[in-house]
Amino acid sequence: MSAVFPVHAKGAEGPLIPVLAVVGVGLIGGSFAAALRRAGQVGRVLGVGRNAQSLARAQALGLIDASVSPEEAAQQADLIMLATPVGGLAALCARMRPYLRQTTVLTDAGSTKLSVVNMAREVLGEQAGQFVPGHPVAGAERSGPDAALATLFEQRDAVLTPLAENPPETIDLVRSAWQACGARVLTMDARAHDQVLASISHVPHFLSAVYMAQVAQAADADTRLALAGSGFRDFTRIAAGSPEMWRDIFLSNREAVQAELTAVREVLAQAQAALQAQDGPALLSLLERAAHARRNWSKE
Amino acid sequence: MSAVFPVHAKGAEGPLIPVLAVVGVGLIGGSFAAALRRAGQVGRVLGVGRNAQSLARAQALGLIDASVSPEEAAQQADLIMLATPVGGLAALCARMRPYLRQTTVLTDAGSTKLSVVNMAREVLGEQAGQFVPGHPVAGAERSGPDAALATLFEQRDAVLTPLAENPPETIDLVRSAWQACGARVLTMDARAHDQVLASISHVPHFLSAVYMAQVAQAADADTRLALAGSGFRDFTRIAAGSPEMWRDIFLSNREAVQAELTAVREVLAQAQAALQAQDGPALLSLLERAAHARRNWSKE
Repeated sequence: MSAVFPVHAKGAEGPLIPVLAVVGVGLIGGSFAAALRRAGQVGRVLGVGRNAQSLARAQALGLIDASVSPEEAAQQADLIMLATPVGGLAALCARMRPYLRQTTVLTDAGSTKLSVVNMAREVLGEQAGQFVPGHPVAGAERSGPDAALATLFEQRDAVLTPLAENPPETIDLVRSAWQACGARVLTMDARAHDQVLASISHVPHFLSAVYMAQVAQAADADTRLALAGSGFRDFTRIAAGSPEMWRDIFLSNREAVQAELTAVREVLAQAQAALQAQDGPALLSLLERAAHARRNWSKE
Repeated sequence: MSAVFPVHAKGAEGPLIPVLAVVGVGLIGGSFAAALRRAGQVGRVLGVGRNAQSLARAQALGLIDASVSPEEAAQQADLIMLATPVGGLAALCARMRPYLRQTTVLTDAGSTKLSVVNMAREVLGEQAGQFVPGHPVAGAERSGPDAALATLFEQRDAVLTPLAENPPETIDLVRSAWQACGARVLTMDARAHDQVLASISHVPHFLSAVYMAQVAQAADADTRLALAGSGFRDFTRIAAGSPEMWRDIFLSNREAVQAELTAVREVLAQAQAALQAQDGPALLSLLERAAHARRNWSKE
């Protein structure tokens, strides 16, 4: 292992991360800690959060060993996982910056990355190279410490969008941590990540919520909902997700979401034109392309 | 039972439907026959279809007792279930009409109803009152005789959209048949049915297919599909459905689908305007309405 982690490894016997700090001890942060502990790659785990009840629960569950302030985490941790909403990262980093050691590595788990890249440079300045933005692409239907699972990231993708300022060994530490959690690690440009996520995650949520709101505001909504079946169930499942979380995602990835929505509306306009013209072959062609692509999706 | 079915009951011991004919022996037709047989409400079951292999398979599975022509079915059956695509109903009814007895009742299982009502009047003329349009709202992910299940309609909705010309006992026979299959029977106006189905079934399919086609045609489609997760999976599941069946549904319910798509696009435009203006409260309000409606949907 020392060949792979020349800077951080404390000899063949030591864990990858002697002191881990997790800010936000919910599904993502708690699962990250639990997975690294299960893999034997953490020594001590510090929890940071604003909710004392969640911190106590995380400690009772063995996810963390102690609760500390952001400043204490910055002083003590080798790796800091910022598993909080993207909107709060700047304030957190600003509090931590004066206390950060030069060898401390920070990463996050936010689902948009360009805004995090910009935040890291603005707030951390010449220490921005210590921050490796990341995004574990894992479902988040449940939340809180009790939802944490050591297996949450197994076989899932963790995307890193490194800064040009990140030294290779800094990126390696974050990559190794995710690999120890069982995740496949991909590296992408932050802008490309945000556009891909806009397409395959944010736009479906936007459309599902818009559709659900339209059905709910219809005068005969009760009749509609009474007759809705399994297709409706699947199509609208994501619309039940956290409104606050999704508002923040849409706002932080606004340009990419708008660009993808524009592209979807172009195809929608073509499809509606075909329907209006009763153009069966054009309609069939669109439906065949969609069905073919969906049936060949390798993950189903 | 004789009080409920004064015309059709053959005494307290006899089945509701002495001779049932099923045109199309796939998922819906086969399940209808199997459910009625299990309930002890059919005597003999005749199968009609263009695919000799399907008919042989249906007979081997015990779904039907014999294969006959449409004309023979018209001569012999007490109830004829037309479980074929809506586009083929007119030709079938035209072939059957010269042979129909006055007491024979016809029904169908198509997912749009106004076009079926119009077809019945045009093709059957003064015998239109023998046709009771119907729509069992049941999933159809599999197809063919082997997909047939006696339990398919249990606890599901079967909507009838009777004609003004239907005598009450004719409607009662079809209602009783669906109830014997375990379905809840609702009666609706055909136009209202088509609008509700456009909203809760056809529009989700249209949007899911449009979205899936847009993702598939992107230059970086492979990267997108590789990172797509459970939200994408649910949102696009219906896009894998039969292109031919859905083309026919969209064409036969064109006006209602377009009207509902227009309503969805209005909400989409509002949501995009809120996003563009970075209006967090307006975006949150929409997402909250959607999440609230979806979480309170009684069927999930």
